[in-house]
Amino acid sequence: MSQVTQAAEELEAFEPASEEKNRKLVIFAASGDLERTWASLILATSGAAMGMQTTIFYTFWGLFSLVKNDKKKGRGRRFTGENWMQKMLSVLNHGGTEHLKLSRMNFAGMGPWMIGRLAKQYKDSTPSELIEMAKDMGVRLIPCQMTMDLMGLTREDLIDGLEEPAGATSALLEAQDAITLFI
Amino acid sequence: MSQVTQAAEELEAFEPASEEKNRKLVIFAASGDLERTWASLILATSGAAMGMQTTIFYTFWGLFSLVKNDKKKGRGRRFTGENWMQKMLSVLNHGGTEHLKLSRMNFAGMGPWMIGRLAKQYKDSTPSELIEMAKDMGVRLIPCQMTMDLMGLTREDLIDGLEEPAGATSALLEAQDAITLFI
Amino acid sequence: MSQVTQAAEELEAFEPASEEKNRKLVIFAASGDLERTWASLILATSGAAMGMQTTIFYTFWGLFSLVKNDKKKGRGRRFTGENWMQKMLSVLNHGGTEHLKLSRMNFAGMGPWMIGRLAKQYKDSTPSELIEMAKDMGVRLIPCQMTMDLMGLTREDLIDGLEEPAGATSALLEAQDAITLFI
Repeated sequence: MSQVTQAAEELEAFEPASEEKNRKLVIFAASGDLERTWASLILATSGAAMGMQTTIFYTFWGLFSLVKNDKKKGRGRRFTGENWMQKMLSVLNHGGTEHLKLSRMNFAGMGPWMIGRLAKQYKDSTPSELIEMAKDMGVRLIPCQMTMDLMGLTREDLIDGLEEPAGATSALLEAQDAITLFI
Repeated sequence: MSQVTQAAEELEAFEPASEEKNRKLVIFAASGDLERTWASLILATSGAAMGMQTTIFYTFWGLFSLVKNDKKKGRGRRFTGENWMQKMLSVLNHGGTEHLKLSRMNFAGMGPWMIGRLAKQYKDSTPSELIEMAKDMGVRLIPCQMTMDLMGLTREDLIDGLEEPAGATSALLEAQDAITLFI
Repeated sequence: MSQVTQAAEELEAFEPASEEKNRKLVIFAASGDLERTWASLILATSGAAMGMQTTIFYTFWGLFSLVKNDKKKGRGRRFTGENWMQKMLSVLNHGGTEHLKLSRMNFAGMGPWMIGRLAKQYKDSTPSELIEMAKDMGVRLIPCQMTMDLMGLTREDLIDGLEEPAGATSALLEAQDAITLFI
């Protein structure tokens, strides 16, 4: 939870110029990359800690992080491990080092090393736990209905505590007058 | 056109809080990934259906989707098929499964399966057709002049019905007071 | 510096509708991709040329472009060349053409060709020089404190002329009332 502490410290040091300014944050989380998943959640929890009305709209590969672990386990032998991060890493490891070397996550050879540090530093905050924290802090997590249809997922395949699935129009209405980030 | 129907339904259910709020959507489409190309077009057509003044600025790899198919065919043997999606897939397939396995589009083994479902669900709306739909709905499609220069493309190499090519400054001026997404 | 000239020409041709509109640009630069690094810097310098208060917040892989070259050289034999672009390309070239063929930078076989044209066209503006230009134009470059911690980097490992390292909260406060792009 160190990023929340940091948020609190920074919040004390800075002041928004005016109360009139936009106080909403809407993130479109479309990526399955681990670092972008982290970025969405860290920005969202920081926004919520600042009192912003914060929403993450999970679409395309991004929706993957809202799928229950047991559902993912059911998809076949590819997925092993205790949580989705481990499963994802096991997938990326599948086939050995050849595989990893060519993935974007190994950019300039720094990927696994950085992820190792991430895992160590946030050892009490896996992505699953950051999602829980986000929910506790009032971040609204909206699964994209179209992506669910494409992936053949129902509401029961997703974790609890999410908003009702919605589409692009809802996301754009929510985005009116907000800080918007497509991650 | 199912996303347009969904947009209409959602639009009926939701109301923007006020007429004063921003009613512009400006998308920077910089990616050549199929899913991000879809995302740009689905968000843009949804925005247009909501009555927003919608603009897509195509830059870097994103510009690729505005190039005429016959131009692309001219680039060499790599490109085969009837439309750019097929050509892109044929490129990605080039060299067999090794190739596909390592691309980001095969994330966790779900890429081709998801694309298959996409193609089925939207069988009357290929990306080319979504672009046509976007133009019909009044979405402004702006090719990036700098990228055209870099790729050695002229206005004649691009599809019809586009706005005049422009640069970063025009895009940023258009982005004033809009919902902005860099996809 | 041709994009600055283009910015000036476009700025003369267009006028923002009103002085009340937002005049701030905040870019979250999270990517290590060469084309996205270019995009951040071209948009930021264009924004600054337009008189916008412009900030780039460098996080995750994006931070890589602020690391001093000699620091990077110190990381091991992988990094060779005179500047970070050369080093990055040498890394991507590492292992021969197999490697390059499968990277996203080789999308549809156009990557190296496009980069070659980029390098030629901007031969007096490497990314390092674009960063210098951005600083000269008053663009604020903020390194992400959390990423520095993760990478084990201190302020001394980064180039000169940067703002104080900050976190997500500072970035979100800066983003209030601005055009925001997550690149």
